[in-house]
Amino acid sequence: MTPFLPHIAGMAGYIPGEQPADGEYLKLNTNENPYPPSPLVLARLRAALDGRLRRYPDAAATGVRRRLAALFGRDEEQFLVGNGSDELLNVAVRCFAGAADGVAFATPTYPYYGKLVELQDARRVAVEFDDDFALPASLSAADARLTLVPNPNSPSGTVVAREDLESLAAGLSGILLIDEAYVDFARGGALDLVDRHANVIVVRTLSKSFSLAGLRIGFCVASPEVVRGMGKVKEHYNINTLSQVAAEAALDDVDWMRRNARRIAATRSRLTGTLRVHGCHVWESEANFVLARMPSSADAGRIASELRRRRILVRYFGGDPRLSDCLRISVGTDAEIDRLLQELCGLMRKA
Amino acid sequence: MTPFLPHIAGMAGYIPGEQPADGEYLKLNTNENPYPPSPLVLARLRAALDGRLRRYPDAAATGVRRRLAALFGRDEEQFLVGNGSDELLNVAVRCFAGAADGVAFATPTYPYYGKLVELQDARRVAVEFDDDFALPASLSAADARLTLVPNPNSPSGTVVAREDLESLAAGLSGILLIDEAYVDFARGGALDLVDRHANVIVVRTLSKSFSLAGLRIGFCVASPEVVRGMGKVKEHYNINTLSQVAAEAALDDVDWMRRNARRIAATRSRLTGTLRVHGCHVWESEANFVLARMPSSADAGRIASELRRRRILVRYFGGDPRLSDCLRISVGTDAEIDRLLQELCGLMRKA
Repeated sequence: MTPFLPHIAGMAGYIPGEQPADGEYLKLNTNENPYPPSPLVLARLRAALDGRLRRYPDAAATGVRRRLAALFGRDEEQFLVGNGSDELLNVAVRCFAGAADGVAFATPTYPYYGKLVELQDARRVAVEFDDDFALPASLSAADARLTLVPNPNSPSGTVVAREDLESLAAGLSGILLIDEAYVDFARGGALDLVDRHANVIVVRTLSKSFSLAGLRIGFCVASPEVVRGMGKVKEHYNINTLSQVAAEAALDDVDWMRRNARRIAATRSRLTGTLRVHGCHVWESEANFVLARMPSSADAGRIASELRRRRILVRYFGGDPRLSDCLRISVGTDAEIDRLLQELCGLMRKA
Repeated sequence: MTPFLPHIAGMAGYIPGEQPADGEYLKLNTNENPYPPSPLVLARLRAALDGRLRRYPDAAATGVRRRLAALFGRDEEQFLVGNGSDELLNVAVRCFAGAADGVAFATPTYPYYGKLVELQDARRVAVEFDDDFALPASLSAADARLTLVPNPNSPSGTVVAREDLESLAAGLSGILLIDEAYVDFARGGALDLVDRHANVIVVRTLSKSFSLAGLRIGFCVASPEVVRGMGKVKEHYNINTLSQVAAEAALDDVDWMRRNARRIAATRSRLTGTLRVHGCHVWESEANFVLARMPSSADAGRIASELRRRRILVRYFGGDPRLSDCLRISVGTDAEIDRLLQELCGLMRKA
């Protein structure tokens, strides 16, 4: 007999995107930033490598929260820092959705949402995006204890209309968590909804736009009351000393991030245009990746494998019938995308 | 109305030991190692400060687990690495104790255990240590879904007899988690119980003996089946890139840790002896701290405040009546303990 609780014993583990160990790949599969973090981050980290590592970190990540408060013109008490935004998503589910409570989100989306619901033995309210990835009306009708809206969404890169988000926030009696992991590549976020709706939590991350996926720093913005409650559930020493140093430095050089985000947006346009010329359907992305439906003659799964043989990784969601003819491609540097396009277009022509 | 689940709304947050922000203190309050981490850790970290931080870390912490497996002569599949051992304690509670399920541990002990039970809305089985901190028989009788035994215990520093642990493991139908956070300062651990009892999990940390509290690295050892199940519940990217680099380096220089642990054990003996000469009751500690009951004329709370005024921090558990006449003192360097003793003995004489 297993010692595990039935819902844990019965679930499959979450499988993150591949991080290959067998040498160099062009990695366009996990939406990492192709540009390095700010030199200020590396310099401050270098200066922090000393005996202080023997001490516990600041449990409140005060320096990080102070900078977030200044950057976004809000109070420190409105910010909570997580071990990646993943921890904050996990904390939110534990805070707001008990066993059998509804958690609503539209699919296809970030597969981890589903895992978090399983972990908590909560109830997943099944809602599907239409092919245009607009906000489904059934999300509001479900009125779940917790509603998750990634914006931009992954894997589509699409954004939902601002006014739709605002009406959703106003119409829900539960919590609306807007996952803005990719917002710095988009035209704008929904941070101001937090000011007008006590039930809104906005989650962001330094992983993508700030090129710090390796250091696991996410944050959320909400009312002080919501932040206080979530703070009870996060691991107390969740952000280690070096991650705090790095996050502070990254927030002291936001221009670096913005410059890279602009370059990525420009490369994304070019990638989108070229794929369309070659017969792909590409959703209008405001993230650092695009979702491309292959021309009908091409087999997306086979193309992903062929690219892998050429040491290029893209993301293929073979398990989801709605995505089985699609590839999600992270936006690399211009040179990387040139290489990808050359191989990919060749493979599509051969199909 | 609060949007939080009732058990979250109703609980108080965990308050970790003070990390003062107002300048220099002699910190003997949170059991940090007074010696810095191995120079190899700092050198390897220095060499890792580059563009790799833009990439996600290895979700499996393969390099760390490989070294743990070699060090302890077991399989990699028996090890799981956590964001501090705290994450692994949290994961264990989520895996094995559902709402209203019993979690048993004897008090006084690490206060976080109680918080984890509240977080999960599980049921705390109240068991008390006698004044000698031997393993209470009622722990076995309770036969909870999950039993936690810290060994050495905090705040007492005491260890329970090995044969008592073995009979407890054999007698329980649920999981026995042995929290060996302080084991490297003790005469020996119970890792081998994992080989003979499928229900045993041993949790350890690099925070204390390896001087890496700032980088949050804990690990557990259990059967491959238990590790696999717990792996589904941990945050997938829980250990960031630099923490993995540091952990690997620390495990490549175990001698550094052992040398420091020996020095701390020697200083602990001297501290214990001197406090006893001055009329304190000091429990026999195998950890990097001692619990001292002040002579009956002295007010422990007042002494802690007076020490604080002299910029020395020790831990006073004022909220626990059983500890209200005690101080927990982390073992610093010899010079630090000399300073502590000078001030503390002066304060006790004045009482």
